[in-house]
Amino acid sequence: MEKIGFIGLGIMGQPMALNLCKAGYSLWVYARRAEMMQSLIAAGATPCNSAQSVAEQTDIIFTMVADTPDVEQVILGEKGIIHGATAGKLVIDMSTIAASTTRMIAAKLAEQQIHLLDAPVSGGERGAIDGTLSIMVGGKVEQFERALSLLHVLGKNIVHIGDHGAGQIAKSCNQVVISQTLTAVGEALILAKAAGVDPANVRQALLGGFAYSRILELHGQRMLDHDFTPGFKIKLHQKDLRIVMQIAHELGIALPGIALTTQYFNTLVGAGQGELDSAALILAQEQLSAISLITDKKDTYTRKI
Amino acid sequence: MEKIGFIGLGIMGQPMALNLCKAGYSLWVYARRAEMMQSLIAAGATPCNSAQSVAEQTDIIFTMVADTPDVEQVILGEKGIIHGATAGKLVIDMSTIAASTTRMIAAKLAEQQIHLLDAPVSGGERGAIDGTLSIMVGGKVEQFERALSLLHVLGKNIVHIGDHGAGQIAKSCNQVVISQTLTAVGEALILAKAAGVDPANVRQALLGGFAYSRILELHGQRMLDHDFTPGFKIKLHQKDLRIVMQIAHELGIALPGIALTTQYFNTLVGAGQGELDSAALILAQEQLSAISLITDKKDTYTRKI
Repeated sequence: MEKIGFIGLGIMGQPMALNLCKAGYSLWVYARRAEMMQSLIAAGATPCNSAQSVAEQTDIIFTMVADTPDVEQVILGEKGIIHGATAGKLVIDMSTIAASTTRMIAAKLAEQQIHLLDAPVSGGERGAIDGTLSIMVGGKVEQFERALSLLHVLGKNIVHIGDHGAGQIAKSCNQVVISQTLTAVGEALILAKAAGVDPANVRQALLGGFAYSRILELHGQRMLDHDFTPGFKIKLHQKDLRIVMQIAHELGIALPGIALTTQYFNTLVGAGQGELDSAALILAQEQLSAISLITDKKDTYTRKI
Repeated sequence: MEKIGFIGLGIMGQPMALNLCKAGYSLWVYARRAEMMQSLIAAGATPCNSAQSVAEQTDIIFTMVADTPDVEQVILGEKGIIHGATAGKLVIDMSTIAASTTRMIAAKLAEQQIHLLDAPVSGGERGAIDGTLSIMVGGKVEQFERALSLLHVLGKNIVHIGDHGAGQIAKSCNQVVISQTLTAVGEALILAKAAGVDPANVRQALLGGFAYSRILELHGQRMLDHDFTPGFKIKLHQKDLRIVMQIAHELGIALPGIALTTQYFNTLVGAGQGELDSAALILAQEQLSAISLITDKKDTYTRKI
């Protein structure tokens, strides 16, 4: 059985690494904040003092960190994976980052015959804990097959999309759909409320027809309840949309719908709401129309969020 | 068994009226274009020469016509329902029109103790033929209950939303969600294509996660295939969005997402594509970014649609 490394033990990485331990794999782990390794050590994992050290002792190394510079750091930086890995080893980056960076890293690693898969996920903390993430994978198909039994420990809907970076592109497409559907559902609920019709009845009616989406079902209910326990945090959602806007800029294409939704996320982070669940998008929409789903008054233009 | 009237036998009304015939109800019908009554006469319905005449001979009168002025005409106009109906009769308007007009008509009919339900539908021609429409109903609950067995012949997901006009508001909310989800799915497919990733693979991956919607499943595939056989026509979709924008204006609320989507429908109708299915929204998005889902070339700014 191949030895497994896991680097990055935050809100997503920690439950994912724990699921690999529970499935019987031997894990070597590293987190820049050493205290994040405690629960993994308790579960039998071996702590390391650098990403390089993890790579020296394992065959397949997962990375799950916050943003593009973090991935560059743990793979290519000082004491990074590239200095510990040898030919034939496989790096699986499950972070959500820019596809262009993924392709650059893949090329650097390939110079030393180290393989890379980009494998960003959808499903949030709940999906990480339950092992039910959607995983969108880019890279060589033989490496995808090599990784598949491991990925099945972490997720349920695992699709090989294409070559290096294709997983990241699919993740961006995923966020384009999810975020804009949040905007759509929020506008429908605002319209119902403003027109004096029960938004909960409207959601119920729409669930049974062509308007059905998982976002209407799950986040629509959270919007009605103003239940913004994450879930998936506004500030991470904003980061993902920054990547989408960056890709659109690089490719020279127009995505006006998601550009609009990005503005809502900007204002929410600006109003100090970055730690709330994405369903809190409704707060920005309520602010815009000076209306609330959970009170009967039409507010004046005070800063409510 | 109550005698049933049906006024308006177009692409939606004709199959709906036929389903009522097949279910064993006695129908009296009227269409402004007399030739539209032929298939109903063949099915045993009695043709009438005015809406007034239909109302004189029946207890419950359905209307299914194109737009707000048409509903006003067949209910309140010369030889309209109001001149034939008597106290206790029920009018069920299944057209999609402005909620403010619905409330005005309800008040006029109530002066003569004639009841009204607004019961707009979602599901398109296919849903009308199969009797699987979603039906969103506004009006008094006792009239809703009176109509329920009839509505069950026409649809599957039948919800009483609230008082007069609430069905129309729910239908507007439905269009806010559906139309904007079309925009979102189209942008995701455009992004994948522009980035050199197979849009069909991306759709497949997204179907398994939080991005799932019926629009991604059905219209996403139509977009990939450029299969624009209606379905639900662009020109009717545009009409529904005009009603949404009118309500937002009346209520003094901002719905920037659906306002953006409305612009796409405007350009499609302007380009002569009003008879295509709503999935043809992708044509406007392809035009905007000079890219096509079904060819490999990045086009120049020629007018393609």
